[in-house]
Amino acid sequence: MPPAGHRKGKATMKEPLDGIATALRIAMVAPLHESVPPQLYGGTERVVSFLTEELVRLGMDVTLFATGDSITNARLRPGAPRGLRMDTGTHDRLAYHFAMIHDVMESADEFDVMHFHIDYLHYPLSRALGLNQVTTLHGRLDLPELVPLYRRFDDMPLVSISDAQRGPLPFCNWVATVHHGLPRDLLAFSPRSSGYLAFLGRISPEKGPDRAIRIAQRAGRPLKIAAKVDNADREYYETVVKPLIASGGDVEFVGEIGDADKAAFLGGATALLCPLDWPEPFGLVMIEALACGTPVVAWPAGSVPEIVRDGVNGRIVTSEDETVAALAAIEEIDRAACRRDFDERFTAERMARDYLRVYRRLLESAGISPSPRLRQSA
Amino acid sequence: MPPAGHRKGKATMKEPLDGIATALRIAMVAPLHESVPPQLYGGTERVVSFLTEELVRLGMDVTLFATGDSITNARLRPGAPRGLRMDTGTHDRLAYHFAMIHDVMESADEFDVMHFHIDYLHYPLSRALGLNQVTTLHGRLDLPELVPLYRRFDDMPLVSISDAQRGPLPFCNWVATVHHGLPRDLLAFSPRSSGYLAFLGRISPEKGPDRAIRIAQRAGRPLKIAAKVDNADREYYETVVKPLIASGGDVEFVGEIGDADKAAFLGGATALLCPLDWPEPFGLVMIEALACGTPVVAWPAGSVPEIVRDGVNGRIVTSEDETVAALAAIEEIDRAACRRDFDERFTAERMARDYLRVYRRLLESAGISPSPRLRQSA
Repeated sequence: MPPAGHRKGKATMKEPLDGIATALRIAMVAPLHESVPPQLYGGTERVVSFLTEELVRLGMDVTLFATGDSITNARLRPGAPRGLRMDTGTHDRLAYHFAMIHDVMESADEFDVMHFHIDYLHYPLSRALGLNQVTTLHGRLDLPELVPLYRRFDDMPLVSISDAQRGPLPFCNWVATVHHGLPRDLLAFSPRSSGYLAFLGRISPEKGPDRAIRIAQRAGRPLKIAAKVDNADREYYETVVKPLIASGGDVEFVGEIGDADKAAFLGGATALLCPLDWPEPFGLVMIEALACGTPVVAWPAGSVPEIVRDGVNGRIVTSEDETVAALAAIEEIDRAACRRDFDERFTAERMARDYLRVYRRLLESAGISPSPRLRQSA
Repeated sequence: MPPAGHRKGKATMKEPLDGIATALRIAMVAPLHESVPPQLYGGTERVVSFLTEELVRLGMDVTLFATGDSITNARLRPGAPRGLRMDTGTHDRLAYHFAMIHDVMESADEFDVMHFHIDYLHYPLSRALGLNQVTTLHGRLDLPELVPLYRRFDDMPLVSISDAQRGPLPFCNWVATVHHGLPRDLLAFSPRSSGYLAFLGRISPEKGPDRAIRIAQRAGRPLKIAAKVDNADREYYETVVKPLIASGGDVEFVGEIGDADKAAFLGGATALLCPLDWPEPFGLVMIEALACGTPVVAWPAGSVPEIVRDGVNGRIVTSEDETVAALAAIEEIDRAACRRDFDERFTAERMARDYLRVYRRLLESAGISPSPRLRQSA
């Protein structure tokens, strides 16, 4: 029998969840740039989708505020007809976000917890209303203009997606770090590689594709690059990356790939190269590789030291020399151990349970006023 | 002796202002894209500057929330170090605006009236706080995404800068139309023209520079074009405007001009051509021309019928044929009458007095809760 307060048609909650006996009513507020999940690129919307579906599966009563073309088992409240990045008729994306914030706030008393993924757009109002709220920050936080903003909103309960992400804003009200997670069955484990190195991401200097090419050339291993080239990085691609590819070795540029090709691309790789030159706040591609059993060889920038365990699920390297040396012994990393590491640390279920703990602490916290329903029942 | 409540060092209020006996404490909230006034382009910031200085001159107690490099006789509360459009180190301009909104709201009880010029950024919070507020909308309102936004915020007291501007959002809470105004002595009257037609603005299809060139060629009159070319319009300039200029007649492209050159440029013109192909919400250039005594020949788009009085301060035309015919008799328009029209309808003082009436109605309105000080004294 479903627990009290549980809506029909939802999966039954199989076990008590960290002390939450009945279905929490959760407002999940996504950005409107892409649908949830996104049709193509869109890291934030992908994670919001994984989290939402997993919370529904765990028996929670989730309302997803997102674009109207989103696909979810939660209750969908459309904030815009479709993903705004695709919608060339829309010039002012912020207008839709403000309309959505209005709708979220107007229905605030329907929810026990409101979980925002829209940066800081809701802070002024959600603070004024004293909501039971938490915000996951998905982007980099090292922009100087964020300091005066967060000095003024240092009471907002925030979740970081890595400990490293907090660096530039240590004074904020960080309530947890919750690493991203993927559905367990999204990417199949591949016990054997096909012998190439993989680079997956955007072609931009901060992602280090030029380093990856030089490393592969020196290591004498084939490299496959699956990447999109944004207009902003077109010159870097033409003047740096393309000549490097032509300069020798076995380097193949396969262009942009979708989710359907990811398991084959990552699963076939001997290692994923992440020669990052920027503080990546999380880096989904690393846990995607681990899900396929592919070790990750990465520079220790941003979240990398929290994801890569040197010698266990990959190697942490700090120079091209070191990487070439590490690759010579890369087959010593057990692919099954990489997958085990994914299963233990980076599934959507682990992520959802982490967030449920955050929600529970919010409800228990004296500093945050409970929602009207909870206040009445108290 | 200054009236009660009047701060030291301000000009003395010379007459009772529409029933407001003591200095109103006004928060004037400007965008942070440019300083107030702007160093170069920036229509909104220019108007905010004119209004602020005039209100101070009329004895009001004005606090200007604007960039730190703004220049004002009001009390300046910096919301960003400098104009953000010039500040290439700032990627997230919205962050500064949100920090400023925090500061404005935190000091809300210091003010009788809060006058916003930052589009809709403050609506959620200012409504939640029940402020004595009014918002002047400076941009075009014909974007479809504004409809769902304003349906949800249809109680916000709004000022339009022309009646025409309201067109796409007739259901909003419009409390007044206040046409822009310029300081009386900003642009000197020029009793005689030097015989050329003038085009002043941006080179973009919606401003109609191609029409202006064809008209001048057919009318057999010289044309001077003072305009900037944005990157977005570079192709239109190269492929349409430049070949047209080269195709004949006496057409001179003088590039972008600053405020210092405006009086000479506009004052020397026989007429200003505004062959607009878009619903311009106001069009400062038209009243700049009138200040110089230069008649305005314009298509009846947007605010034009509210500014141009056919046969009095210019001509309203609807085709290139009609414009050529109108120009043949343009010298019949009295330049002194154009300046008189400016003096009567488009000075900063008239604008400031209009806004004071708006503020007073806000204070009287039962639907808007007065600021704490007024509540206490009531």
